[in-house]
Amino acid sequence: MAITEQDPGGVVTLARDLIRCPSVTPDDGCGIAALAAVLERIGFSVTLLPFGEGAARTPNLFARIGTGQPHLCFAGHTDVVPVGDADWSHDPFGGEIHGGILFGRGACDMKGGIAAFVAAVRLYLNRHPRPQGSISLLITGDEEGPATNGTVRVLEWIEKQGQIPDFCLVGEPTNPAGMGEVIKIGRRGSLNARITVNGTQGHVAYPHRADNPVHRLLALLGELTAAPLDTGSEWFEPSSLQVTSIDVGNTATNVIPARAVARLNIRFNDLHTGADLSGWIRTVTARHAPGADIHIAISGESFLTEPHEPVEALRAAVRDVTGQVPRLDTGGGTSDARFISRYCPVAEFGLVGTSMHKADEHVSLADLKQLTAIYAGFLEKVMR
Amino acid sequence: MAITEQDPGGVVTLARDLIRCPSVTPDDGCGIAALAAVLERIGFSVTLLPFGEGAARTPNLFARIGTGQPHLCFAGHTDVVPVGDADWSHDPFGGEIHGGILFGRGACDMKGGIAAFVAAVRLYLNRHPRPQGSISLLITGDEEGPATNGTVRVLEWIEKQGQIPDFCLVGEPTNPAGMGEVIKIGRRGSLNARITVNGTQGHVAYPHRADNPVHRLLALLGELTAAPLDTGSEWFEPSSLQVTSIDVGNTATNVIPARAVARLNIRFNDLHTGADLSGWIRTVTARHAPGADIHIAISGESFLTEPHEPVEALRAAVRDVTGQVPRLDTGGGTSDARFISRYCPVAEFGLVGTSMHKADEHVSLADLKQLTAIYAGFLEKVMR
Ligand SMILES: [Zn+2]
Ligand SMILES: [Zn+2]
Repeated sequence: MAITEQDPGGVVTLARDLIRCPSVTPDDGCGIAALAAVLERIGFSVTLLPFGEGAARTPNLFARIGTGQPHLCFAGHTDVVPVGDADWSHDPFGGEIHGGILFGRGACDMKGGIAAFVAAVRLYLNRHPRPQGSISLLITGDEEGPATNGTVRVLEWIEKQGQIPDFCLVGEPTNPAGMGEVIKIGRRGSLNARITVNGTQGHVAYPHRADNPVHRLLALLGELTAAPLDTGSEWFEPSSLQVTSIDVGNTATNVIPARAVARLNIRFNDLHTGADLSGWIRTVTARHAPGADIHIAISGESFLTEPHEPVEALRAAVRDVTGQVPRLDTGGGTSDARFISRYCPVAEFGLVGTSMHKADEHVSLADLKQLTAIYAGFLEKVMR
Repeated sequence: MAITEQDPGGVVTLARDLIRCPSVTPDDGCGIAALAAVLERIGFSVTLLPFGEGAARTPNLFARIGTGQPHLCFAGHTDVVPVGDADWSHDPFGGEIHGGILFGRGACDMKGGIAAFVAAVRLYLNRHPRPQGSISLLITGDEEGPATNGTVRVLEWIEKQGQIPDFCLVGEPTNPAGMGEVIKIGRRGSLNARITVNGTQGHVAYPHRADNPVHRLLALLGELTAAPLDTGSEWFEPSSLQVTSIDVGNTATNVIPARAVARLNIRFNDLHTGADLSGWIRTVTARHAPGADIHIAISGESFLTEPHEPVEALRAAVRDVTGQVPRLDTGGGTSDARFISRYCPVAEFGLVGTSMHKADEHVSLADLKQLTAIYAGFLEKVMR
């Protein structure tokens, strides 16, 4: 793999190679295998960590070069979302380049990001053949799917091995429109609740003989949505509660129904925990609809990496390359960073996400080279 | 038909005869024909008034004896609701009597009521062969069904003939548990509304890019249900708004839906009109969900017959026979009295409704005789 000015650290070549492997979630192994081969050639100790059985079997890898401190880890995924129903102008798994743009599923989310990190490591090691610290990669083949046998299981393994890193950089596409805009230092938590209110069916002419579950539901949802959960915190935008469905299914206009069901989602910041919010939902529901059936699933707690040294180093590296100081942000959906945050500080920075999960997903070669330079600059700043 | 102490005015015989005709809505004509024959024998001028074509054809009759004032009308229906799924202990159309109880579909709603009125007329005419005033019967074969070709059409015909009565007595079973409890002097109105709120679909993580129609619906329904519509009026219990259904049908927990639909019913007293309530619903909806689609159907306005002379006479007749002063009430569902009220004062008094529309519908012979005596006493008081 040639390292030239047109392909610094081999980033373009590696991105194309990875795109040409159609590793739709869960990666059947080709993405992980291709990456393992590259990393071994560079000198990494690579451990393949498949977890799960049968259809749930997920390939993963942990690779590390060096054993010293600081231990910096790059985390990402080789699996990609399906091609989708919309038409593509280019083969989603062809890795075609047209007018300085590389097309393909995973181009920005996040095979391009993985390629940039590997290229940055090559450039760094060219300058520092024997670094004091160590660099690792935690790559999963199931981030876009249920993620059960991916990052969570690899982290458990890493902990058992005593190899928890000092800092982890996740290569998700964090920039909304142009390189250098956003570093994510946290994510909101997410909670889903389903509330079923059972009342007493009756005729609308005799409401005192019935118990309208819709009115109880309206009262409790009214209280849950009456005021914003908060006005945001230092690093987070306000938490948001969205009632996603209410279903009764009563077509008789003269009948008070027996049952009403509501579903809601809360995206919450660091002022709340899933447990606190669950308790609040149960208390409000009990006040208006005692005996209601409440089912709550917490998909993830919120997390925050306070902007300390590595985050500031990443910010400086972005500024050096792009000329702009990235905003530290915690918005948007969830990523595997929520699992990593339980073990070590974590931040996310990658490509521009405009085309992710869409037809004609792409990345500009200019962005790929900029990201390589940013990652390389970051390594210079944090490794000793 | 013998008039004995066991069967005053022939009430029991006529009730049995009518029950033995299986005139499930719409009456195929047997109930109306049987009654027409009896009324002609007494001396009534009977006009058969079938309206509607094909399956919607409904037999009705208007019968009058005398031409003078006051003109008192008795209104009712010969059609009955279906037998239903529950088992009967007695043939629903057998007219069986066991232990002083007459069983059969229509026993209390309202073939028994019709029989009592006809028997009362017989008793009255025995005492007053040439009354100054006149007595009529407005009987429909479709009260329990759509009622399109029933009482409404007969009233139009009566008006054209210049035969609108001075007062109308409807023989529906108004007594909740025992004879003499309740005279109905009005009924609440009824309005159905369907409100469809269209929003903008989106991801729950980015609520500012979406417009959640469920939240708009919650806000407007919250305002519509925030306070009672009123605290009742002199003759009416409070109006009641019941949200009967809310439907979204969104199963994706991370998606803000595009549309939400609510259905509601209002039973309203004489402090409101259908038009006022429609305007209020539209105003509140526009405040929270401009552009929402609103469909409103007014099934009937409220009406009230202020308790004047004939109502007081009816009340006194009930008291004379039962020893109790009936409550003047406006509660419960709707009846054909809502149509009659557009033409003349109307009140309702009949049998005990406990078993109406149920299996083993029945009436006690004692109640049939009491109702006959009450109707006869009423005729004594109001006819000159
Ligand atoms: Zn991703
Ligand atoms: Zn009836």
